[in-house]
Amino acid sequence: MSERSFQLYDTTLRDGSQQEGMVLTVDDKLAVARHLDALGVGFIEGGWPGAVPRDTEFFRRARTELTLAHAELAAFGATRRPGVAVSRDPQVRALLAADTPVITLVAKSHTGHVESALRTTLAENLAMIGSTVRHLVHAGRRVFLDAEHYFDGYRRNRAYALEVVLIAAEAGAETIVLCDTNGGCLPDEIGAVVADTIAATGASLGIHCHDDTGCAVANTMAAVDAGAIHAQGTAHGYGERCGNANLFTVLGNLALKRGLAAADPGLLGSLAATSRMITELTGVPSDPSAPYVGASAFTHKAGLHASALRIDPDLYQHIDPERVGNTMRTLVSDMGGRSSVELKARELGYTVDAGSEESARAAARVKELESRGYSFESADASFELLLREELAGSPPEPPFEVDSWQVSVACRSNGEVGTDASVRLRVDDVPLAATGQGNGPVNALDTALHRALDPFFPQLARLELVDYRVRVLNGETGSGAAARVLVQFRDGERRWGTVGVDENTVTASWRALLDAVRYVLLDDVRPGRGAVPLATAWAG
Amino acid sequence: MSERSFQLYDTTLRDGSQQEGMVLTVDDKLAVARHLDALGVGFIEGGWPGAVPRDTEFFRRARTELTLAHAELAAFGATRRPGVAVSRDPQVRALLAADTPVITLVAKSHTGHVESALRTTLAENLAMIGSTVRHLVHAGRRVFLDAEHYFDGYRRNRAYALEVVLIAAEAGAETIVLCDTNGGCLPDEIGAVVADTIAATGASLGIHCHDDTGCAVANTMAAVDAGAIHAQGTAHGYGERCGNANLFTVLGNLALKRGLAAADPGLLGSLAATSRMITELTGVPSDPSAPYVGASAFTHKAGLHASALRIDPDLYQHIDPERVGNTMRTLVSDMGGRSSVELKARELGYTVDAGSEESARAAARVKELESRGYSFESADASFELLLREELAGSPPEPPFEVDSWQVSVACRSNGEVGTDASVRLRVDDVPLAATGQGNGPVNALDTALHRALDPFFPQLARLELVDYRVRVLNGETGSGAAARVLVQFRDGERRWGTVGVDENTVTASWRALLDAVRYVLLDDVRPGRGAVPLATAWAG
Repeated sequence: MSERSFQLYDTTLRDGSQQEGMVLTVDDKLAVARHLDALGVGFIEGGWPGAVPRDTEFFRRARTELTLAHAELAAFGATRRPGVAVSRDPQVRALLAADTPVITLVAKSHTGHVESALRTTLAENLAMIGSTVRHLVHAGRRVFLDAEHYFDGYRRNRAYALEVVLIAAEAGAETIVLCDTNGGCLPDEIGAVVADTIAATGASLGIHCHDDTGCAVANTMAAVDAGAIHAQGTAHGYGERCGNANLFTVLGNLALKRGLAAADPGLLGSLAATSRMITELTGVPSDPSAPYVGASAFTHKAGLHASALRIDPDLYQHIDPERVGNTMRTLVSDMGGRSSVELKARELGYTVDAGSEESARAAARVKELESRGYSFESADASFELLLREELAGSPPEPPFEVDSWQVSVACRSNGEVGTDASVRLRVDDVPLAATGQGNGPVNALDTALHRALDPFFPQLARLELVDYRVRVLNGETGSGAAARVLVQFRDGERRWGTVGVDENTVTASWRALLDAVRYVLLDDVRPGRGAVPLATAWAG
Repeated sequence: MSERSFQLYDTTLRDGSQQEGMVLTVDDKLAVARHLDALGVGFIEGGWPGAVPRDTEFFRRARTELTLAHAELAAFGATRRPGVAVSRDPQVRALLAADTPVITLVAKSHTGHVESALRTTLAENLAMIGSTVRHLVHAGRRVFLDAEHYFDGYRRNRAYALEVVLIAAEAGAETIVLCDTNGGCLPDEIGAVVADTIAATGASLGIHCHDDTGCAVANTMAAVDAGAIHAQGTAHGYGERCGNANLFTVLGNLALKRGLAAADPGLLGSLAATSRMITELTGVPSDPSAPYVGASAFTHKAGLHASALRIDPDLYQHIDPERVGNTMRTLVSDMGGRSSVELKARELGYTVDAGSEESARAAARVKELESRGYSFESADASFELLLREELAGSPPEPPFEVDSWQVSVACRSNGEVGTDASVRLRVDDVPLAATGQGNGPVNALDTALHRALDPFFPQLARLELVDYRVRVLNGETGSGAAARVLVQFRDGERRWGTVGVDENTVTASWRALLDAVRYVLLDDVRPGRGAVPLATAWAG
């Protein structure tokens, strides 16, 4: 490790934004930047000013609205165009106008790209790099250079690729980042090329990988092992095609497997929470199996493991999940049977005897419901209701009875749409009726339900419907299939989910709504309530 | 590479079945096995007979119902219990009763696990391995041994770990599979341990990795590079926690980066299709960014790349996607602007001039709709309708007009639920009305729509609603948010999707239904229709 501290460089807001399904407003980008900063990354690439209007706006607002405690903000852009004086190139001007302490230039280092894509000479390309770097260094910026298609370029013409590195370093670029832009490399090649490039040029190198061979993280680790002092990645590995190197995984690996403080080690414990918060901002469905931060990363299912886990968690975990702010979870499923139910119950704060009749009953009930399409993996609240019922031996006294409900959606000839729901309930045999409107059947029923019940049960007021998903089960036809509806709620600080299954999608939603209400109305102090952080991400 | 051909070993149906959200019936398992066989894998681990009832049933039915052209079927199970004669151990009997040509035994190779989890002596564990392997070899089976927790065990007590390998090999096990059960290793360690183990024992080794450090595939490649002749993995990397090594990625890498025919090279072109078919069977949402097989693996978005792609696709792709049965796709989004629209249009078979006014208009319209929540990435049909409108310069003559629609869902006090929809339309100014029932608002409206229109447009009869997803956008409250509904249809052999966005979830669904009807009713021969394979997996 060189004297300089390691440079962990995040490009979520630029390269990561190529991720399908991700559209960030400028507000979102500023919020993501704050979360990344709180994690302690060294550099945040905010975007491509001049080329992407939203990014120009981001840098403008960042000047006054973004206060970074750990990271330096970087603007990304291309070298000057062929044949244009650097001071007159509008792209370069836009880079300077972004007013960031760091500028990262992307340049071609592959002769094929210089000729076909840029349509210029190899010599002019080198001049473009040298003059642009010098110009920006002279303007007082720290400059990094992304050598695009480096590994393919090195394979095709090693001398030219090394020339690019040398020119950039001599012109004052602090770090030359070797990019496996097409993502086709494997770790051994990455390591060899990085080592050779260091030996041949003496430059400080960085690494930027893509996941087209499923080795982006390993490639990044190989480069660092070979001497790179800078690693780029994106949150959750967001990016085009197969994505970029997953920055969270790289950070976890560097810290916990290499003892390398790529970011502030004291902040590693916020890794999982950072993942969840960024997921909520980007709207890209989280991957429950993501290393370190995934909702399932430390989730055990097999009956075999569950019994060993009760003895010693370290037998089956490569690290203590608390180190990255995650927790061990167990899944209830027919694979785990009794052991899984017991572990899950303990996790929720209940005392269940190993091998007891109650846990056998609960396991059997879970199995039967699962065969009908239920899935409790994203519906801890529904599971807990079921568990309590089996532990008690009989269903609890219901806080209210449902007589009937109805919802209709009508679009009139003038195009106006109205959604109206009505529910008829009984609380202590007192009949209640309430109506509700909403932006759909689920929302309208939820509104009516609250109108009827909140006066009797004030604690329901804090219950908020946050998201829901409908999945059509059992076959591919729209009719005759069952639907599973998973609903997520916010209850003060906590988020949890319920599930409902029925042939009818609205009935399935209704069941999930009722579970949520019953869950909030549990009248005793539920053990462990608030102490167990429940996963906010959808598990499946 | 040794004289023996490489052993590619799939454990989707056993280790992969720990995947959250995956529940396979025996029929499903048989179907998955057939698809894996068609891909040419060498071995298919069908499950754990005796321990998992569904797996016992699988092997029973496989005897008569499963004809494998390439793979050998393997049964998985544990060595005999401590202190029990191998011929009397019911687990071992179940393994033999499964009647498979191959049996894979799992055994402890980590002293900590032998003592804490198995609660026996180190010597007895070795005896359990030796006697069970010998017993099964004597019964005429090919035996593989999974050395569980090998790398952790080797780190803790190298001599004992090597002893396990030697005992198993001497007893007749053909391949000893070193398992990184906790998934905590990085490639360099894997490679070193595999190399040392081969040098110390001379045994034929396999590798079984998990993805807890994001390096399962790289670890597998490192082991093969160090001399392993057998690699295990699961389809899509299914598995507990962070999953197993992704067999599709490993297969692609071995074939295309190492020139190693891990499976029949002539079958590699069916990789992407195999992925889609297995996804439909498992119900686990596919990962569009999966290497080689993902819907987005060769999908380009950025405007920069789109213009270079038009010149030479190989500039931005590490392999020709056709080699794995995938295709290059381009996304329409505001990032790509005109170039992306043009590429997409050409992909769909339309001729669009570069830089034309029409493509600029289409790009602008996409951008505007996206800002309102639309996403065309899983809705090729909706995009094509939009494109045709912009190319024509004006909206087409609509085949029908909508006057009004309505749907209601009512649950009576006896618990019965009824869903009724009615639509009022006009075809050539002739007013039509129709009603429909269904298992939810979308299904009922779809039924009513067909009742009204199928008599006039018989081609609509083949249109079938297959699946739909509702996503609540823009913030976390159930009210005031917009909803985006993506609907998938089957139209004869083809599957495609439409999208609708509205504040009201049912209105959003209605828009998506109308788009589907209009798409089928396009009255000219649409260019490229049927020629372009549209992705069946959801892209986001």
